[in-house]
Amino acid sequence: MQLATILARAEALYPDQIAVVDGAKRVSYRELAARVRSLAAALEARGVGIGTRVACLEVNSLAHLETYFACAELGAVLCPLNIRLALHELVFIVGDAGARVLLAGPTLAERASELIAAAPFEHVIWLGPAPAGAVGVDYQHALATAPRGTPAASVAPDAIAQLYYTSGTTGQPKGVMLTHANVWLHALATVAELGLDASDAWAHVAPMFHLADAWATFAITWVGGRHVMLAKFEEQAVFNAIERERVTITNLIPTMLNRLVRFPGAAQRDMTSMRRILSGGAPIAPEVVREIMRVFRCEYVQTYGMTETSPYLTLSLLKPHLATLPAEEQFHYRAKTGRAFLAVELEVVGDDGRPVARDGRSVGEIRARGPTVTPGYWKRPEETARAFVDGWLCTGDLATIDAEGYLQIVDRKKDMIISGGEKVYSTEVEHVLYEHPAVLEAAVFGLPDADWGEAVCAAVALRGGARATERELIDFCRERLTHYKCPRRVEFHAELPKTGTAKIQKRLLRERALHES
Amino acid sequence: MQLATILARAEALYPDQIAVVDGAKRVSYRELAARVRSLAAALEARGVGIGTRVACLEVNSLAHLETYFACAELGAVLCPLNIRLALHELVFIVGDAGARVLLAGPTLAERASELIAAAPFEHVIWLGPAPAGAVGVDYQHALATAPRGTPAASVAPDAIAQLYYTSGTTGQPKGVMLTHANVWLHALATVAELGLDASDAWAHVAPMFHLADAWATFAITWVGGRHVMLAKFEEQAVFNAIERERVTITNLIPTMLNRLVRFPGAAQRDMTSMRRILSGGAPIAPEVVREIMRVFRCEYVQTYGMTETSPYLTLSLLKPHLATLPAEEQFHYRAKTGRAFLAVELEVVGDDGRPVARDGRSVGEIRARGPTVTPGYWKRPEETARAFVDGWLCTGDLATIDAEGYLQIVDRKKDMIISGGEKVYSTEVEHVLYEHPAVLEAAVFGLPDADWGEAVCAAVALRGGARATERELIDFCRERLTHYKCPRRVEFHAELPKTGTAKIQKRLLRERALHES
Repeated sequence: MQLATILARAEALYPDQIAVVDGAKRVSYRELAARVRSLAAALEARGVGIGTRVACLEVNSLAHLETYFACAELGAVLCPLNIRLALHELVFIVGDAGARVLLAGPTLAERASELIAAAPFEHVIWLGPAPAGAVGVDYQHALATAPRGTPAASVAPDAIAQLYYTSGTTGQPKGVMLTHANVWLHALATVAELGLDASDAWAHVAPMFHLADAWATFAITWVGGRHVMLAKFEEQAVFNAIERERVTITNLIPTMLNRLVRFPGAAQRDMTSMRRILSGGAPIAPEVVREIMRVFRCEYVQTYGMTETSPYLTLSLLKPHLATLPAEEQFHYRAKTGRAFLAVELEVVGDDGRPVARDGRSVGEIRARGPTVTPGYWKRPEETARAFVDGWLCTGDLATIDAEGYLQIVDRKKDMIISGGEKVYSTEVEHVLYEHPAVLEAAVFGLPDADWGEAVCAAVALRGGARATERELIDFCRERLTHYKCPRRVEFHAELPKTGTAKIQKRLLRERALHES
Repeated sequence: MQLATILARAEALYPDQIAVVDGAKRVSYRELAARVRSLAAALEARGVGIGTRVACLEVNSLAHLETYFACAELGAVLCPLNIRLALHELVFIVGDAGARVLLAGPTLAERASELIAAAPFEHVIWLGPAPAGAVGVDYQHALATAPRGTPAASVAPDAIAQLYYTSGTTGQPKGVMLTHANVWLHALATVAELGLDASDAWAHVAPMFHLADAWATFAITWVGGRHVMLAKFEEQAVFNAIERERVTITNLIPTMLNRLVRFPGAAQRDMTSMRRILSGGAPIAPEVVREIMRVFRCEYVQTYGMTETSPYLTLSLLKPHLATLPAEEQFHYRAKTGRAFLAVELEVVGDDGRPVARDGRSVGEIRARGPTVTPGYWKRPEETARAFVDGWLCTGDLATIDAEGYLQIVDRKKDMIISGGEKVYSTEVEHVLYEHPAVLEAAVFGLPDADWGEAVCAAVALRGGARATERELIDFCRERLTHYKCPRRVEFHAELPKTGTAKIQKRLLRERALHES
């Protein structure tokens, strides 16, 4: 279970197949493997070996994919950095990880240079032409001058392959350790789940520094598929890439999907190459799912996972007997969070520590166990111990499970509101708000209230040109939800704040509202 | 990577789906899981726990499948016995394994009773009604009186799950140890390779005591598919089962396929449910492959593997770009031994210890590495050490590899003939003999020869009603092969002798010929 074997297989079986398309660059698997060996040799010459932490600050690119495989080849630990973090956060992460080497994207030269100035890297390799006057070596130079013939290191299955820092909406970021076995097994299980093969072309649209996309680095390579790189999210570029490269599958974050389906002319684009579209990285409202299916006209798969689980925990793939149901009943399951991923065991556990009834109503916390689950947080034994109960990882996500085994997340445990002694799941209220034609984005949270304990509040951003009042949205909810679940207050925003991975920052909204009240 | 999780998943996601069809019995996954828990509890009550060896002597049946999962649940080591072995061989195996418990099939009562009399079992459970006067308890009684609520044992991934004794055409049988991780990973990789899902129905026709079929026990259960049991191979029964149960996939041994395609009316049977037919367990001649594709009218997949590798090493699945070739060129690849299975690394290594050229002509030995490879032979450290070179398992099989990465086995290393200083691969000569319309079965081997070192000899069985002379078959080969490869002698047999797993016993034929000469 060494990640290096994945690229070796593609090189052996698909040497002439195009591996990566990045702008004008088209690289075969034979070329990719040779480039990765050169990068690995260049890193090895700089003292990188088994266990060395290598940080990477880069947009989606050919070189980014190469950093994953070069580190795998050496047994080094890749630490992909979220490019949207503030400098002090990056400095903290690089220090916490003890990264000695930085691989820096030239399009991020300003931020990278600040980071280089603030952190004690021993070596910097630019993943392209080195900016004028910058510390560090040029990529072509590093590859061209690398010693030849580096053999792949022999790495144990439980050796750390990657260190992903969680976005950390509260407290300091924590490094999630993923082993070679974690990532290898996850990739194999996705091949099985999604029927990936060499005819697939994956668009890397969601950021490759995040597992919502990064798992496909290994899964698509394993089967000899094609990687299509998009350096940043831009609607026109995504549609163009799908049409030009005949993309068959990708995973997008709901905020991206929301923007794509509302893009002028979206429904007229040629999506005939698309086999499946996956949504993951944040919850999604059924109304948005309907729009996605209308625009992309291919199978829609809801995904749910965590960095701690490599990442998938559920997929909303239909079990064969459900695929024979009428369209609306199929939609019911497709829009759910999904049933357990092939490689994990899941439980939905109530406050009494026992599995809840499989009735689609009883709520419990999702727990996960299996070989794709992290061994823990980097240098944080106490937090690791707190995350597990009896060997099960506690996700902090609340969900129902139905008779077919499909989960539906209702809320983060920390986001659940208790109003008048009743539990209100913020996601349920948000889904209703998304049904309102004027609403583009919605977030629901609780605020302290003298009478009710907590009061339900909503923050919304409206669609361009649309209008709505607080009263109107509250009434809209009252027609569709039990009274105590309805917002008592609605704030209007031009746009809701997002994390570096495009998740709406619900807790930030709550804090701001607290300060204002 | 515990095998018990596989059935737990099927129980959770497919409780009402039919899991097993065995004659008139139809058992759902809910029922199967309950029965397995009862069997596990019955075994636990008899002292079976982690590491205990449990022998099983049984035809293909519901109970046989249950023994696999009950042992998995307890962390016990299942030792499936080849029902066609001689008593002294069974006694040797049971003693070597140190099996304390026997699970005995009632249809094999005579052989089982002999074994019970000869081996020091502490407990015997009959997998059905106990024969009158026999030692041991009745299956229904054991299940009904089992203590309730056995929890699944927590088993390490490298714990031994199964012990398969290799048929041992030379020397004593050796126990191949397979771990939970070996078998779990192999099952997951087959789901990915073959696109298995809950709509699949697998016919257990090849014996379940052998990995040619036993791997499907786990893979089909994982996805909630249906197991269709055939207690013994009989052409009419196989066709009936495919038609009645709408079987979608199975793996048959070449001698079985050979008999099926020649069965009267074979081409008129309803094979429309069949998605893929796999052939494995022994080499197969291209002429037979053509017949199989004509009769079964579904995708044909050649497989190759070993007990030591859980078992698959190659599959002849077409890479997507090959599936666009003209039919005859596709056939060329389908009839080959295949390209590397998803979960293993393969090398074809020449006498100089380096990979041979990928030219489809250069011959080397196949070596395998990866997480589905056995940790070794039970209590035989020296033989284990001899089987591996630099961490690679040496298969003893000689093959070519072509530019597309497809292997073609040319011979067992031990079966290769050296005649007049030239290498003759017995399989190549056999394939030519199979093209002759009168030939049903063929085996080619070398005999000592004063002039040539070894002389090429063939043993053949003719089809019913067919005639041929030695001269005619030698001339047939001379028209198609270089002179030194052609048999100098042809023996005619009514039927060629087979091993317990239906492989032609080439070495037995050679020994007999040696004695006679």
